[in-house]
Amino acid sequence: MGSAGDAERIVRDLCDGVGKHDAEALRPFFTDDVVYHNIPMDPAVGIDAAIAVIDGFFAMSESLKIETLHLAVRDNVVLTERIDTFTVGKIVAPLPVMGTFEIRDGKICAWRDYFDMGQITKMLSGDS
Amino acid sequence: MGSAGDAERIVRDLCDGVGKHDAEALRPFFTDDVVYHNIPMDPAVGIDAAIAVIDGFFAMSESLKIETLHLAVRDNVVLTERIDTFTVGKIVAPLPVMGTFEIRDGKICAWRDYFDMGQITKMLSGDS
Repeated sequence: MGSAGDAERIVRDLCDGVGKHDAEALRPFFTDDVVYHNIPMDPAVGIDAAIAVIDGFFAMSESLKIETLHLAVRDNVVLTERIDTFTVGKIVAPLPVMGTFEIRDGKICAWRDYFDMGQITKMLSGDS
Repeated sequence: MGSAGDAERIVRDLCDGVGKHDAEALRPFFTDDVVYHNIPMDPAVGIDAAIAVIDGFFAMSESLKIETLHLAVRDNVVLTERIDTFTVGKIVAPLPVMGTFEIRDGKICAWRDYFDMGQITKMLSGDS
């Protein structure tokens, strides 16, 4: 492991995996010490905290699908521009997101997502 | 023009140029039809609108400095993870940002910045 192609594949597989709506199934993607930081929120430090945050997103939504618009890799860092679409009841909320993934030994050791909290809050309230 | 290296240089030069606090001096970086979209806000369509938005940021701050943490290029698209630091009076507001730049014929034809509006609003209010 270690090439840019490997890093891209890991991130694309994770993004596809999110669509399966099973947080525990995503555990193999992460290092034990992963830091998962949704930038408007506090970071989740460690794999258990990260999985708990993802599980929280799944618990609040019937589906969460990630569409990757752009992806570029430098060394062990993968930068993405995405639409993360939450479906909650009759509300479909397509959230514009950019995210950084850092890869170590074939696993994600850091994940930082940038988005506007006000935008997703407004969409999920049904006031889109 | 057209290589990934050229695209990277254009974006790095723009980011450095922002530090000079002169919006008109940035005009040569953009195509006439550039779309500059700060994602939590409405997009600025066309070079005059884009320069006006940048000028507005400069007008509200004594300085705006961009630090690029990560940058990666695929084809004509440059993805960045940055800290954009606004200085407004005694307030120093380091805003976490990710941004996408699309390059056409040696100029930026699209710029999309992702950040949390609540975070910058809170910092600039002095409640950090």
